[in-house]
Amino acid sequence: MQNSNYAILLAGGQGSRFWPQSRTLEPKQFLSLHKDNSFFEQTIVRVRRLIPPANIFIATSELYRNQIIELIRPFKIPLDNLVFEPDGKNTAPSIAVTVALIDRRDSKARIAVLPCDHLIKNNQRFLQILKKALMLCENKLVIFGIPPARPATGYGYIQAGKSKGDKVSASAFSVKRFTEKPDIKTALKFIKSGDYYWNSGIFVGSGKVFLREFKTNLADLFGQLKKLHKPEDIVRIWKQIQPVSFDYGILEKSKNLLMLPASGLGWSDLGSWQAWDEILEKDDEGNIFKADVVNLNSRNITVVGANRLIATIGLDDLIVVDTPDALLITKKDKTEEVKKIVDILKSKKRQEHYAHKTVKRPWGSYTVLELGEGFKVKLVEVRPKHSLSLQYHKKRSEHWVVVEGKAKIARGRKSYIYSSNESTYIPIGCVHRLANPSATISLKIVEVQAGKYLEEDDIIRLKDDFGRK
Amino acid sequence: MQNSNYAILLAGGQGSRFWPQSRTLEPKQFLSLHKDNSFFEQTIVRVRRLIPPANIFIATSELYRNQIIELIRPFKIPLDNLVFEPDGKNTAPSIAVTVALIDRRDSKARIAVLPCDHLIKNNQRFLQILKKALMLCENKLVIFGIPPARPATGYGYIQAGKSKGDKVSASAFSVKRFTEKPDIKTALKFIKSGDYYWNSGIFVGSGKVFLREFKTNLADLFGQLKKLHKPEDIVRIWKQIQPVSFDYGILEKSKNLLMLPASGLGWSDLGSWQAWDEILEKDDEGNIFKADVVNLNSRNITVVGANRLIATIGLDDLIVVDTPDALLITKKDKTEEVKKIVDILKSKKRQEHYAHKTVKRPWGSYTVLELGEGFKVKLVEVRPKHSLSLQYHKKRSEHWVVVEGKAKIARGRKSYIYSSNESTYIPIGCVHRLANPSATISLKIVEVQAGKYLEEDDIIRLKDDFGRK
Repeated sequence: MQNSNYAILLAGGQGSRFWPQSRTLEPKQFLSLHKDNSFFEQTIVRVRRLIPPANIFIATSELYRNQIIELIRPFKIPLDNLVFEPDGKNTAPSIAVTVALIDRRDSKARIAVLPCDHLIKNNQRFLQILKKALMLCENKLVIFGIPPARPATGYGYIQAGKSKGDKVSASAFSVKRFTEKPDIKTALKFIKSGDYYWNSGIFVGSGKVFLREFKTNLADLFGQLKKLHKPEDIVRIWKQIQPVSFDYGILEKSKNLLMLPASGLGWSDLGSWQAWDEILEKDDEGNIFKADVVNLNSRNITVVGANRLIATIGLDDLIVVDTPDALLITKKDKTEEVKKIVDILKSKKRQEHYAHKTVKRPWGSYTVLELGEGFKVKLVEVRPKHSLSLQYHKKRSEHWVVVEGKAKIARGRKSYIYSSNESTYIPIGCVHRLANPSATISLKIVEVQAGKYLEEDDIIRLKDDFGRK
Repeated sequence: MQNSNYAILLAGGQGSRFWPQSRTLEPKQFLSLHKDNSFFEQTIVRVRRLIPPANIFIATSELYRNQIIELIRPFKIPLDNLVFEPDGKNTAPSIAVTVALIDRRDSKARIAVLPCDHLIKNNQRFLQILKKALMLCENKLVIFGIPPARPATGYGYIQAGKSKGDKVSASAFSVKRFTEKPDIKTALKFIKSGDYYWNSGIFVGSGKVFLREFKTNLADLFGQLKKLHKPEDIVRIWKQIQPVSFDYGILEKSKNLLMLPASGLGWSDLGSWQAWDEILEKDDEGNIFKADVVNLNSRNITVVGANRLIATIGLDDLIVVDTPDALLITKKDKTEEVKKIVDILKSKKRQEHYAHKTVKRPWGSYTVLELGEGFKVKLVEVRPKHSLSLQYHKKRSEHWVVVEGKAKIARGRKSYIYSSNESTYIPIGCVHRLANPSATISLKIVEVQAGKYLEEDDIIRLKDDFGRK
């Protein structure tokens, strides 16, 4: 029997709240802050016991194409299930186009929509509730409501109505209304009343219910869905689509909502460094050191490091996040303001919010070691059996020294194998290609670029394994 | 007429209190924390209006030979005036050997001994007092006493006795006693009594007075001085000398002391980051940013940076000092403990207390850009008309790419000029030499070392412009 349970993982966020560890090119969902794997991978692991990989769809940004393709490989999620948005239009369009694609494939689909940058500690409990939601969602959108732990002002609140009387939906409630991010007074009132829940951002509906809601509440968006037959079609309709959130565009207006109280999940939206800090185990002084730290008499501090020594003396209630090109030092109860720092960096057109010093590429990564007048030094790492594009540069020469592994280097029409401690030179205009022929060992080269213009956009690609131009 | 005024600058301290900006190889006296030039240079500028360069002697450590020779060049201080101690034996031996050398040259010498890592804002006033001290010092050691501003526990205190009645020494006092670093209760009593002064560490005496005091109080040390005829002789006697401070060995015991109150100097011993912080002008929120900082709502913080972005949110009363390989974050009133951090680093045999990532050499500097398994990447900068030693390596090859200026590179018996964007290779065992032939432009090369052993000690020097072996 065909499994008609589907998931849409929303993985397009540029989450700036975990800056400087998150960057536009490496947002929160791809960080491994909590466990060895990323929040994104944790979300796949969580749902795949109910939803087969062939039914997991991912709505993400074109920016994350390479990371996503890489990350889903071990899970055997088909590439056809990936929806790459040309730019961010908030959640309603993401969900709409992905629901439409699922509906074309399976008109009986029941679809769970899941953020993939949240923490859920109790997977067992999550699956129980998800199972119930998949049963209840034929004609309703079923929302996971989190019993509120404190009068938070950063969440949306769902006011529960009557409990449904029948057997299956014994614990489901109708929804009276939605309130986005209340002030503290209102939040306190909500908590006191006992019938308010936090909006977890997790909701489940049949394809038919979703499409009906889009038709009723976001008719323009719904109209565009007709032109959509395969994921690539998104490029053609995307310009006509207005940005709007699913909460605002659908949930606040819909008359067909149910809420399932989702207690005991161990849920956190990890909306800030403070939220992350709260879930971690501290030492006797309340400190967390994920770094090379020498500490004297500090209490309740959390230090996340890169590769430098960090000495701390007499500090209280701070979070320190160190990366090779940017350092954050913040009072713990002020971590909400990290977003403002990122906004300032954007407005100043700085690079520290956009990419890390080590930039990931589909074939591996590079790190700029030094940038000088007329030269740039990079450490380039190429993964086994991967190669960069066949390319040339108009404005720069490159000196390559192999320092680890073996390189297959094409220069002009010839191609040679270079071992570590061997070097070559790529003059301006020379067509070349760097490849790692090994099946197991990474290749590392030190590249010294020379020229007056050394930006990344001086690459003329003639052939590329990753469809880049 | 011969000028018989002399100065001994004590420039051998390894001041660890300004870590991570100070390192063993670049101690406080060579830092330009306050002005464009170093404390050491400021001290020379301060005294040279009374004491000619030919009469300025410098007692320092062998470790600082290159820096000192470089720094004194513009001041035309003779190389014969430099005393390089093979290792640290505290202040009494430094002063004794230097006084003995001055006495050999000029038996009528009057000598001012000066630390060169202190701040003195009012040079005019300093020179007035120094002039008076030079007049009074024929038969007495004359100490500069600082009127205490607060009950500090980190200084030595001088109790003033009777004022001298005669005309010249109208404001000089006899000295009742010395008390090193009192507890806070005692310090408060001292301040209240009104006749205590801080020991500035600046004192003046004739050569005869100094030698008489050494003979009386440190006879063993005095005995060694007979073998000393020129600065190089120090190596022969140094092993026989016991470490002892001038304060303890002489000042606490001497019966021939005068004190000159030295008010209005704008003096600070800059004994900690906090002391440095106190003398600087703050912005309206009490902050000082000598770094690339984005700040939200911090007060009374001081941030000293290297080349990275530092974001600060909601902080109070902190000092942050960032360097490429080590970061310090400390509560302002805890900066005394920086010394403990350095002690911990020493005990753990770490490198971060010893040298900066950019290591100065007599010919220029190098920076390790990357250290990997079997390879090391360096940016090497050679000053105009300087060259490295003629050398070879037993265990590593080197790939050089010129990225700025011109290089004269000898490989084996041949020598060529290389321009930027040209490269060469130095195999294991190949005798080579790197020189900058330009009179004006610096040379920069990127060096990629390959080999299993890549430590600095794998250098066999055949010829060297700086007498290194």
